Amino acid sequence: MTSPMTPDELERQIRAVGAERYHDKHPFHRLLHAGQLSKVQVQAWALNRYCYQAAVPRKDAALLSRTSDRDLRRAWVHRLLDHDGTGADEEGGIERWLVLTDGLGLDRAYVTSMVGALPATHFAVEAYVAFVRERSLVEAVASSLTELFAPSIHRERIAGMLENYDFIDEAVMAYFRRRLTQATRDADFALDYVKRHATSRKLQERVIAAVRFKCDVLWAQLDALHHAYVTPGLAPPGAFSPPSGT
Amino acid sequence: MTSPMTPDELERQIRAVGAERYHDKHPFHRLLHAGQLSKVQVQAWALNRYCYQAAVPRKDAALLSRTSDRDLRRAWVHRLLDHDGTGADEEGGIERWLVLTDGLGLDRAYVTSMVGALPATHFAVEAYVAFVRERSLVEAVASSLTELFAPSIHRERIAGMLENYDFIDEAVMAYFRRRLTQATRDADFALDYVKRHATSRKLQERVIAAVRFKCDVLWAQLDALHHAYVTPGLAPPGAFSPPSGT
Repeated sequence: MTSPMTPDELERQIRAVGAERYHDKHPFHRLLHAGQLSKVQVQAWALNRYCYQAAVPRKDAALLSRTSDRDLRRAWVHRLLDHDGTGADEEGGIERWLVLTDGLGLDRAYVTSMVGALPATHFAVEAYVAFVRERSLVEAVASSLTELFAPSIHRERIAGMLENYDFIDEAVMAYFRRRLTQATRDADFALDYVKRHATSRKLQERVIAAVRFKCDVLWAQLDALHHAYVTPGLAPPGAFSPPSGT
Repeated sequence: MTSPMTPDELERQIRAVGAERYHDKHPFHRLLHAGQLSKVQVQAWALNRYCYQAAVPRKDAALLSRTSDRDLRRAWVHRLLDHDGTGADEEGGIERWLVLTDGLGLDRAYVTSMVGALPATHFAVEAYVAFVRERSLVEAVASSLTELFAPSIHRERIAGMLENYDFIDEAVMAYFRRRLTQATRDADFALDYVKRHATSRKLQERVIAAVRFKCDVLWAQLDALHHAYVTPGLAPPGAFSPPSGT
């Protein structure tokens, strides 16, 4: 039986997963941030990514439903509220994502229907929801830890997209601006939770595998976009397709 | 309220889904059957497709677990037995698939561990299992109906692969040879079941959507293979990768 890692070694290994596999390294993101995508390609990204945004509150509710630890629920419910908003003074992350898709000229009913999204997007997103519903609680918490790596991609995205696309302005980038602070707060909490609760070697290895799994969920979505809309550009039957001639 | 279709019109619409979306139209299959893939690309296909084969008995068991109709269970359990075999005189479809991966020079422990398979493969396969577990029984049955379209792709595959690859012989193609008769028998039963039980317009539309969903599950697996191993050939971190130089 191998002895447990120290909490700091566990953190180091979690961060190493991100360094190798977080989707900031995916060629689709490099194209997106460098201004090398057409508006239609950016639309495809935004409407597929909407499926992920729309599923996040279900994922967080699944986690809330699984724990009797009131402190954890109190800390975690912020995610649900951040994403769904209140409908009054706080519109929420999903609404801010729709401001982005509006700004890209996409019809809101089409985006929220998700009929144009790639099947592979749905499969990856639902794999994430199922993971949080079915695995141990500490693995479920750990699967959120890709947020540790998010602020730098968001900063890069805000700067890159504002600079490189004439159809992007500050208003449509509000989602990412807000996530800079939210993701940092949430990730700090989740990392602390995982370091305190994954105390056996076995659990620690599962935690690391959970972060790897989540990186796969994000990466697979970009693979599907890249295949359908960049190279070779073969969107599957029924998926959002560029008007011919673009 | 739209009135129901006749059973024959329902069958016609189910077959139309296949004509548009069945994965025999995917460019990866065209390359596979025409002998235009390298051995490493055929290996990638076979080891990813193993994940699908390995999940099929879980999918069929999920369906069996949901029905009190003994006649349906008696008819359906053949699928489980066909796939798992008995271990004695009948080796089963999964074993025949492993004969194929053996013949391709893949290590059996590596294939069955599934660690080299693409995350997108797992996501698509598990979406299929979840669909059968969660949707109505008639939709679960309907999701098998891609078997209606399978015999022609299997005939094409047997002929094309035997002719075009020197690393393929009759022994490794046994899986497909056997499926020619099994798939026809199973598809006839499922089609008859669906035509008798999907009697409202609403259910009929769900049945058609179930066939479309299943086509998406198959198509997404080939999209992922095409992206990772053909064009642009970017296998995600951790996935099976060709030895450098091939």
